Order: sequence, then C-alpha cells, then structure tokens
Amino acid sequence: MTAYEIISRKRDGRKLTFSEIEYFIEGFTRSDIPDYQMSALLMAIFLRGMDEEESNALVQIYINSGETVDLTSLPGIKVDKHSTGGVGDKVSIILAPIVAAAGVPVPMISGRGLGHSGGTLDKLESIPGFRVDYDIYEFIKKIEKLNVCLIGQTAELAPADKKIYALRDVTATIQSVPLIGASIMSKKIAEGIDALVLDVKTGTGAFMSEYDQAVELASALIRIGENAGKKTVAYITDMNNPLGNTVGNWLEIEECIECLHGKGPEDLMHITHVLAGTMIYLGQKAESIDEGIEASKARVKDGSAWEKLIDIVEEQEGNTGILFKPETYPKSAYQVEYKATHSGWIDSINAYETGVTGILLGAGRKKYDDIIDPKAGIRFHYKPGDRINAGEPVFTIYTDKKDVIDQAVKNLSQALEISEHPTKSPELILNYLDKSNI
Amino acid sequence: MTAYEIISRKRDGRKLTFSEIEYFIEGFTRSDIPDYQMSALLMAIFLRGMDEEESNALVQIYINSGETVDLTSLPGIKVDKHSTGGVGDKVSIILAPIVAAAGVPVPMISGRGLGHSGGTLDKLESIPGFRVDYDIYEFIKKIEKLNVCLIGQTAELAPADKKIYALRDVTATIQSVPLIGASIMSKKIAEGIDALVLDVKTGTGAFMSEYDQAVELASALIRIGENAGKKTVAYITDMNNPLGNTVGNWLEIEECIECLHGKGPEDLMHITHVLAGTMIYLGQKAESIDEGIEASKARVKDGSAWEKLIDIVEEQEGNTGILFKPETYPKSAYQVEYKATHSGWIDSINAYETGVTGILLGAGRKKYDDIIDPKAGIRFHYKPGDRINAGEPVFTIYTDKKDVIDQAVKNLSQALEISEHPTKSPELILNYLDKSNI
Repeated sequence: MTAYEIISRKRDGRKLTFSEIEYFIEGFTRSDIPDYQMSALLMAIFLRGMDEEESNALVQIYINSGETVDLTSLPGIKVDKHSTGGVGDKVSIILAPIVAAAGVPVPMISGRGLGHSGGTLDKLESIPGFRVDYDIYEFIKKIEKLNVCLIGQTAELAPADKKIYALRDVTATIQSVPLIGASIMSKKIAEGIDALVLDVKTGTGAFMSEYDQAVELASALIRIGENAGKKTVAYITDMNNPLGNTVGNWLEIEECIECLHGKGPEDLMHITHVLAGTMIYLGQKAESIDEGIEASKARVKDGSAWEKLIDIVEEQEGNTGILFKPETYPKSAYQVEYKATHSGWIDSINAYETGVTGILLGAGRKKYDDIIDPKAGIRFHYKPGDRINAGEPVFTIYTDKKDVIDQAVKNLSQALEISEHPTKSPELILNYLDKSNI
Repeated sequence: MTAYEIISRKRDGRKLTFSEIEYFIEGFTRSDIPDYQMSALLMAIFLRGMDEEESNALVQIYINSGETVDLTSLPGIKVDKHSTGGVGDKVSIILAPIVAAAGVPVPMISGRGLGHSGGTLDKLESIPGFRVDYDIYEFIKKIEKLNVCLIGQTAELAPADKKIYALRDVTATIQSVPLIGASIMSKKIAEGIDALVLDVKTGTGAFMSEYDQAVELASALIRIGENAGKKTVAYITDMNNPLGNTVGNWLEIEECIECLHGKGPEDLMHITHVLAGTMIYLGQKAESIDEGIEASKARVKDGSAWEKLIDIVEEQEGNTGILFKPETYPKSAYQVEYKATHSGWIDSINAYETGVTGILLGAGRKKYDDIIDPKAGIRFHYKPGDRINAGEPVFTIYTDKKDVIDQAVKNLSQALEISEHPTKSPELILNYLDKSNI
C-alpha cells in the first residue's frame, strides 16, 4: 500500500478500505505523507465523494488520532449542540447555561470565527479573563462541578482533523460532505457526548447556501452520529438574515445577557428554545421536545440560566462584574448610526454581507493571525418584518477604524432590502430530521 | 485573483482563463504558490479536464516559463519525433541519424526512463563519454554542424513543466490528456521545430493502454501543435510486445548498430522507416510519405545513416571506438539463457512485464536517484509469430545482481504466451492521424 496507490484509487472513483484511509491519515498526521499528496487526495474525495462506510471510517480514524473525553462516570445523558455557522449566531452562549440549568450535562467544544461567520470562542473571549484553553482533565472537572464547560478544540482531540482542516482551508476542499462530516462529528464524538442536536444552516450567510445541500449534510451527520451510537437529530434553519440584533463579539455577549433576562429578540429566542428544548428532551429531562421547550423558557424566566452563565464565567476565570454592568465595557472610538432614507418595511438583511462588514469593522479575521477587536460590530435596530420610518436609525456600527466607516455603512445600507409593502419575518426553522426520516 | 479561487473554479468544472492559468503556473514556478495548492489544482484538472483553449494556454505558459531555441537562421524545415514511451523503443537513436543524413535538421530533446519504459537519454549515456547536457547555445551549434543533436531537457526550457511534472509523478496526476499534452508539446515547440511526428503507443506496455485513449491523446497533441503553427501528425502504434529484440540500455545501442547496418529486426525497422519517412516528407526532402520511406531505407543501405551516428557520438563526446567493436563492451556478471520447455509458436510477450523485469535486472530506476546498470537487460531470440522448438533458447538475461535472476526468469517465462498453432506477428501501425481526420 502506498500513498500514490490510495490517491489513484479515489481519483478513479473507487471505494477506499478502512486500512487505506487509516494508512493515509495516520501517515499525514505523523508528517510521513507530505501536504501535496494529502491535498491531491482531498480534491479526489471532494470530486469523487465517499460512501457511508468510508465516512464512518474517516470519523473513527480522526477520533483515534487523539484522546477522547470519558464522561461515563458522570451521571446523566450528556448532550451538545453544533451549528454549521452563521452570522449573529450566539445561540450556544444562551443555550448552554439553559440546558445545564435544566439538569442536562453539556460538554461543549466550540470553534472560532471562520470566513464571514463568527465563532463562539471569540465571543466568549470578549469577556475579560475568560479562558477556553483548558485540557481534558480540567474540562471534565468543570463539567462535574457545573454540568457545563465551553472550550476550544485542544491539541489532544482529533489532531488529524486539525491538521487536515488547515490544508482544506487553502486548497478549496472545505465544502465536501464527507470531509465536513468527519471534521464536525469526530470532535463531537471525542468530547464524550451521548446525544447531539445539529443546527444546519442554509441561506446567504451559511456555508451550505442551498437547502438541498443542507439536508444532504444533515443526513450525513445524523448517519455518522447514529453509527457511532450517539442519538443525533438536526434542524435545518434559515440563515439569510443575521440572527438576533447584533453581530460582533462583545455586542453579542451583551445580547446574550439580555436574552437570559427574558429580553432577547424573538428570532433568536425562538431558535434557542427549540434547540435547547430538544437537548433537554434528549437528556431525558422532558417527555417531549415541546415539554423541553417549556423547560427551557422556565429556566430563563426563573433566572437559573442567568445564574448558570455567571457560574460558568466565574469558573472559567472571566470577569463576572462586567456582565452585571455591561455599560462599563470599553467603547469603540466610532459609533455611527445609519438613518433610513425612506419609509417602508424591512424585507431582508443580507447575512453574508453583514458578516463580511463585521470583519471589515474589526470583529473577525481576514488572515489567520489577525487580532480581533472585541468591541467592533453592528447593532440592528429593526429586523425583517419591521416597519421603519424615514429618518429613524436602522443600524449602528461600532469600530476603532475610521477609514472603514464609509465602506461599512455603504455595504450594510445595500445589504438592506426595504419594501413599500408590509413584509413578514422569515420562517426560521425549515425542517427537523432524525434517523427515522433521512 | 487568488490561487484558492482558481482551484475552486476548476474544481467546479468551470473554464479557466489564460490569465488565471498564467497566474497559477507562474506563481508555482516562482515558489510563491505552494506544492499543496498546485497538487489540488492538478487533481481538479485531472478530474474536470481542460478544453482546447485551456490546453493551448497551458502549453504557451509552459513555454513562456523558460527560453526557446531559435533555429530560424538555419536553412531547412526542422522536424522531430516524439514517442509516448514503450519497452524496447530505441527508434529515436536509429531514426535521428537517418533523417539528418537525408538532409532534414533534427533538433531532438529526449527523456529518461519512466516507470516500466526506457528512455533515449539513458540509452545514449550507455555509450562511454556521451553527453546529453548541452545548453541551448551548444545545441544550436551542433545542429548547424551535423543537422542533428540529441540532448535532455535543459533547465532553460519549460522549467514550469519540469517542476509540475515532478509533482504529478507523486500525486497520481500523470495520465491526464491536457497535462500530458502540455508537457510533451511545450518542450517540442520550445526546441525550435517546424513539424513533428508523434508515435502514440497503445497496449500493455504503453501509458495509454486503451486504443481510444491513445487516439484522444494523439488528437489533443495534434490540435496543440497545429494551433502553435507546427505541422503535426501522429501514428497510433502497438505496444503490447517489446519493440525489437533487446531491452536494456547498451543492449539496445548494440541493436541500433545492427539496424544501421541493415540487420535490424523487422518490427523495429518497419516502424523506424515509417516514422523517419514521414519526417523526411514533412522536411520536404520527399514528395510523399512513401518516397520518404524509400529515402529512409536508402540512407541505411548506403551507410550514410551509420556514418551520421558516428558523427553524432563523436560530436557529443562519446567513445566511437566501442561502436565499431561492441563486443569489447564490459559484460554482465551473469548471462542466463531460458530454454523453451515445449515447442510451439510465440503468440505474445507481455511488454509491461518485460519492462518491469528490465528494471529488476538493473536497466531502469525504481526510485528517482537509483543508478542504472547500462549492461543489464534482456535479449529475445524469438518474437511473436516465430516458431520455437523445445530446448532452444528463447531469451537471455544480463545482470550483475545474482539475487534477482530467478525472479526475472520466472517473470519473463510467464510473460511469454506460446500457442500450439501458428501465430502472426502483430500489426504494428494501427492508425495515422493528422489535422484532416481528428
């Protein structure tokens, strides 16, 4: 068996065996197989695909490349949520404390901002002192204590995925269902979950812009999860408009605080309660998803989810004081309001353009080693379906970079579609999938 | 324009523009674009293809990456031949002196052994002292003097091709028609030819084993050549059996000497005269291909081709004495005859197995930096169509490596198909293609 032969077989559309995939991935992880052979194989996989058996093998080999978190000694059914990424998607930060407060353990390993979309870790790190770099031992200790911990991918978990992801990112081989599937599911399975709720986004601001692609990806993820013995369900959700009112790291934390005080925007709270409710149901703390949703709402209403967030921030060494007085957070040098030039109803806000503008303002990275400005971002004062009157502020941008203001305002004003006729806020949850209907 | 975007476009089956291909190839040649991005693009080209316009662009960009040989000041129509490679294919070494003796200038840039097939340069270098590493200036001077010069690809000609070829060789992206086409034709066009005769081989010992693939490649090569203003024609020839009686570098030179003395085997001389005759016709030293073939035979018969070979060897610093007394060449430590175990007629000799066995004996390279044993190889005493009697020697192997003898004899005896009924020698020339019939 040689790397060359394995590339040739996949190039010719043939199925790879477990040991062929293992030989290649392990060789690459050890640096015995060079980058250029791996990228040829990745492009061949992208264009020729992998069947269910190959996908399961790939996930298992990714997991085997590192350590796994063993949470079996902890009582309860451990449930996590994974979103494929969007703009303004701060759901994890609201949902993790809700679900943990409802009695379901949440071992959550999150990612950073990627392309036009934000990342949970970057948002959490906008809280001064907050740490996401704990090792597996500390991760388990914190879950034992609080029922929840939010960290980043450690070097110990699925290192093969980490190394291959970096190569996919520069060789145009990201958007392949078997490769995405293995990347997402290896980390989730390795983190010690029993069940998983997936939020697979579709629309302008999603990585899978087409609905059918999103369903294909969700189905593949469910198959991989179920094959690994993890109860896995998925929602296909709309990502044509930013989620909630804010985009930008600290602005989104502020919005999460409002959400946990019962003052969150309708779209964001709807999706959060559905996902959290499903987790509570899978964690067997509710008899149905609907009951789970009620439990989720109750955890916000009684303040226990908010208290859980404070506990998390304290446990992960963040400054809890700032959460009680968010108005004391440092301010951006420039805050610019954009006022509506004519009256009407907001039809849509292009999520992709919003995400790209967020990066321009300093809220994300253009290059891997760019430094994020946690204060930078956008706050929308109106959302699709809302009436606006000429002269009223539609959005405010926050930035320290004077030279990008004009461009940012121009981008965002063009990202807004305003109609002369009443519009409706879009349907957010498009489909629910589990092993019974894929 | 970024390397990532260009990879994505080809990945999605879209057509690349001249400037996109140029940006990528030039960037890679300068080492600004890394190996792993080039190998992703190569796999995408392999699987998605390139149309005629893209292929022409690729050839032109390969040529532009280096210098070109300007032979316009030399009188005459310069003609070269290119073979896609086979086993026992020493035609260039017989044909170049014939065509030059017939008054047609032959600027010939050849290759080394590749996989199971031999290479003209390795064969020439088995002549003690023979040099193939002249630069463009010396190449031109020698053609001016003798009408012919045989060298290897210099660092000055199509360096982009050289760098990309090395990467294709380890990423399973060799057998792609647009990539093969650009690689072959860029070197040929850059060497200063006016016309080209292609020998595209098909069969077990060829790179394009299927006849239809060979026709596809030949057609692509003709289109590229004609688009570049070079008269280009192609023969599709059979490579199921080794060509001539010998495989191995010096053994093949000995066979060339016999050929130029009118004692060459029928199959080898037939193909040599057809290709040489076509070159003489394209070089306007004959009124038709048939007249060219007669001229080719005459140049052997009158000894002028043999004298031209001696002139070439002398001019390129080789030992001419050994050509007059080939029996004085160093001998292999082991010469083993294989005798027929039963009588019959030879139906076929598997060319691929013969080539692989040649490498085993020391006549080729398994790895890039292996050293070739010029003495090593195989001599067949009978060929397909011949009657053999039990106990008569069918072939002799030559090697210094005692430990490979048993394996080599076993391989070759299995590569022989012997029939109880009379067989015929196979038809060698399967088709003739030019711009009028592709």
